[in-house]
Amino acid sequence: MIRGLFIGRFSPFHLGHLQTIKTIFKEIDELIIVIGSAQQSHTMTDPFTAGERVLMIHESLKNEKISLEKIFCIPVYDIFRNPAWVSHVRSFTPPFSIVFTNNSVIKRLFAEAGYHVKSPKLVKRSFYKGSNIRQLMIEGANWEDLVPSSVQKVIADIDGLKRLQEINRTTD
Amino acid sequence: MIRGLFIGRFSPFHLGHLQTIKTIFKEIDELIIVIGSAQQSHTMTDPFTAGERVLMIHESLKNEKISLEKIFCIPVYDIFRNPAWVSHVRSFTPPFSIVFTNNSVIKRLFAEAGYHVKSPKLVKRSFYKGSNIRQLMIEGANWEDLVPSSVQKVIADIDGLKRLQEINRTTD
Amino acid sequence: MIRGLFIGRFSPFHLGHLQTIKTIFKEIDELIIVIGSAQQSHTMTDPFTAGERVLMIHESLKNEKISLEKIFCIPVYDIFRNPAWVSHVRSFTPPFSIVFTNNSVIKRLFAEAGYHVKSPKLVKRSFYKGSNIRQLMIEGANWEDLVPSSVQKVIADIDGLKRLQEINRTTD
Amino acid sequence: MIRGLFIGRFSPFHLGHLQTIKTIFKEIDELIIVIGSAQQSHTMTDPFTAGERVLMIHESLKNEKISLEKIFCIPVYDIFRNPAWVSHVRSFTPPFSIVFTNNSVIKRLFAEAGYHVKSPKLVKRSFYKGSNIRQLMIEGANWEDLVPSSVQKVIADIDGLKRLQEINRTTD
Amino acid sequence: MIRGLFIGRFSPFHLGHLQTIKTIFKEIDELIIVIGSAQQSHTMTDPFTAGERVLMIHESLKNEKISLEKIFCIPVYDIFRNPAWVSHVRSFTPPFSIVFTNNSVIKRLFAEAGYHVKSPKLVKRSFYKGSNIRQLMIEGANWEDLVPSSVQKVIADIDGLKRLQEINRTTD
Amino acid sequence: MIRGLFIGRFSPFHLGHLQTIKTIFKEIDELIIVIGSAQQSHTMTDPFTAGERVLMIHESLKNEKISLEKIFCIPVYDIFRNPAWVSHVRSFTPPFSIVFTNNSVIKRLFAEAGYHVKSPKLVKRSFYKGSNIRQLMIEGANWEDLVPSSVQKVIADIDGLKRLQEINRTTD
Repeated sequence: MIRGLFIGRFSPFHLGHLQTIKTIFKEIDELIIVIGSAQQSHTMTDPFTAGERVLMIHESLKNEKISLEKIFCIPVYDIFRNPAWVSHVRSFTPPFSIVFTNNSVIKRLFAEAGYHVKSPKLVKRSFYKGSNIRQLMIEGANWEDLVPSSVQKVIADIDGLKRLQEINRTTD
Repeated sequence: MIRGLFIGRFSPFHLGHLQTIKTIFKEIDELIIVIGSAQQSHTMTDPFTAGERVLMIHESLKNEKISLEKIFCIPVYDIFRNPAWVSHVRSFTPPFSIVFTNNSVIKRLFAEAGYHVKSPKLVKRSFYKGSNIRQLMIEGANWEDLVPSSVQKVIADIDGLKRLQEINRTTD
Repeated sequence: MIRGLFIGRFSPFHLGHLQTIKTIFKEIDELIIVIGSAQQSHTMTDPFTAGERVLMIHESLKNEKISLEKIFCIPVYDIFRNPAWVSHVRSFTPPFSIVFTNNSVIKRLFAEAGYHVKSPKLVKRSFYKGSNIRQLMIEGANWEDLVPSSVQKVIADIDGLKRLQEINRTTD
Repeated sequence: MIRGLFIGRFSPFHLGHLQTIKTIFKEIDELIIVIGSAQQSHTMTDPFTAGERVLMIHESLKNEKISLEKIFCIPVYDIFRNPAWVSHVRSFTPPFSIVFTNNSVIKRLFAEAGYHVKSPKLVKRSFYKGSNIRQLMIEGANWEDLVPSSVQKVIADIDGLKRLQEINRTTD
Repeated sequence: MIRGLFIGRFSPFHLGHLQTIKTIFKEIDELIIVIGSAQQSHTMTDPFTAGERVLMIHESLKNEKISLEKIFCIPVYDIFRNPAWVSHVRSFTPPFSIVFTNNSVIKRLFAEAGYHVKSPKLVKRSFYKGSNIRQLMIEGANWEDLVPSSVQKVIADIDGLKRLQEINRTTD
Repeated sequence: MIRGLFIGRFSPFHLGHLQTIKTIFKEIDELIIVIGSAQQSHTMTDPFTAGERVLMIHESLKNEKISLEKIFCIPVYDIFRNPAWVSHVRSFTPPFSIVFTNNSVIKRLFAEAGYHVKSPKLVKRSFYKGSNIRQLMIEGANWEDLVPSSVQKVIADIDGLKRLQEINRTTD
């Protein structure tokens, strides 16, 4: 039994993430999805709470018939302290043997800790990218096609579009 | 659709917890299980990491054929700051409307925040109690019958019995 | 112009505190009242929020015709780090030259930092004491006579008696 | 009785703030002034300690004959955690029903928490603006006319002009 | 070249510690001395600052002609988070291969992280023990003979005896 | 006996630092070297752990025949809270009377606390500068000549060049 770890902020969870998860499952049996920067919300980079992001992922995977028996979806808060980051993540998750990430710092940290690290191939990266989707949301452009329908629903339920547009209007 | 919240430390997850979850499900459709004191491990009160506790719960529920599509299992760290506790928990979880807990402080905090709070009936509380089970583990007595078989397996895999017995031998 | 500093937790503000403040004012022109452990509430030792404690003091002094032009009432959170405590307090308050406290650690810390420290005489200490008043509240005995009427009102408005009694019923 | 909340960093307190407070008082009976980023000082954005800022406000209001019986001036430290921010502020203050702020994130956070939020009209915003005043101080230009005389005095007493000019000279 | 790690709080550094260090050096070439709970001082368990404890150790070793070229004396603050403790310590120290400690939790944590852990033999443990020495200091009994003369000097220079006796007189 | 304090991040320790230390020793008897931002590593500004930086300094001074009996090398973590910074540093170090730094904020903070502060003359600042050396390392240019041979060895042992180059390749 091989258990993998996939780290992201999922702000929001999009179709690129979903595709990556499907691809990763060809190599593993169970997947831990770590939601980073979990302590934050209502910022330009992380407009959604960790709980909202958990719900986006849970609903999307359920909708895609990916069995939740093989998934652990775990929010992890930042400690702003790289040398303890691997231990921090490890203490919040079941054991794992492969790490999937494209973040160069996280890659190095897990590699130094002896983990097997892989960079999942990114699908149409310029489109399926959190910063791009958030920008489209702010502009009122079409962002809906870049996320699963379950994510659209979660964002609608929390009035998320207006939230992001409002916090974008900084004054001071 | 009614979503409930059940808060505990699950050190370890035992048959009393399992029974409570089954009973709670008569009133709700989905359940968020919050693992409190998630930042801690290797203490007399919380010998297991949050990740180990997530695994205990996940495996036990899977084994009991409780659908993980209806479950959110979320570790939440302590902030040692009661007035922000409800907001803290809420930011890590999907929305919920009922809170299940027997802890009097947590009850009061969620009640003041406007939540419907219920005290789940405890089954054979003197037996099915974390502190009792940890004491039995330390003494080398029979603790196995008080936890699901999946929990026994997780504890065996991490050499958890010896861990608890060793940290019990404090010197100064 | 002499400005003094008076540190307490004020859980709750009682007639002993009020008497002490009146006495202190014979030696000073302005008084900074520091509310310690300001980050906490809903505990057995600090059942009230810092804001509730600010209100107790504000209302009591107003009622006693003590001019609020001569008062600074400032909540300060714990840092659990004695060597930085004096600097911490100092950064939250206007400058001061005398410190009034009966806490031996705080006395020593301010004395080592070069401050003039005085121990205000305590009036009927066994009665006018936070822990005594909280115990009377839990027992449903007469606590009202030990606090200013303004404090009674604040506690009534926040349902504070029931709050303390409820959090006293710990289960686990 | 209506109590309002006005949030700012007051680095320093200026005539625009003073005018806003006077205007706000047409709608409310009591005002809580929250000094944000209270943990910080000696930075380019917050050169003054929370205590120095408390003193600026206290002295200015006293000088303006605004009764301090109707004012609560409370320093609140940053938690860098938006989802708990409203609870955090609320725990440090007496209860309030209206929030006055022009910061879009704070507006959204309090609005989501169910508060009535208003944007106070800003007077000559390009002049009466903390960043503008600090820049004038650094350049040695005329900043004095933009702040109350009490603020000039506080800054003189702490040698604040030189402090800001010195910390502006960063080396590496 | 073998580098060892010796962890303690050194409150204060005593002759038992000194003897242990001499013994440890039979097995190693260089020693890292980690001063734990470094953030604290002026408490009954840690009356001295980390800096004062560094000085005690430095002066004592110099006096004993133990070459400081083979010593790293490093204060490390508590994180109150066992699962990240080993990484935390490791990030503050040069690499090491053996850990010397008698604390059962620290032993277990380093052992789980794959380190070779040894329990140094304790010399006359009931005498050479921090809690015993602090108690003697409070009582005004003979504590001087239990610490190196350099430690006596450091404590005299900071008026440490009176500090401990004063903070012992708690009021509330 | 005069003890000085020299604060830096030493990312990495270079020949400019070494020259400064030699120059400082003309004015003092003992030197405390404070390694700031000690909690961090694997960032573009602080690629090395505090422990790795301790080792760089220790080995370089030993190699230069600067007696370690006159040196205290102490890692200090950031508190992101200027008003408590001087107390924070002071609690981790033996007493000192002169502070050597070129950082304008640190200069001001120690000066306000009553310390004698001096700006060490910087040797060929554009060359001997952490940011310059890290840039050369990233580019694969000649950085070796700017650091002591002991630092070259430490960086080689930890595969530090590749670490910095890898974390430089940020993706998102």
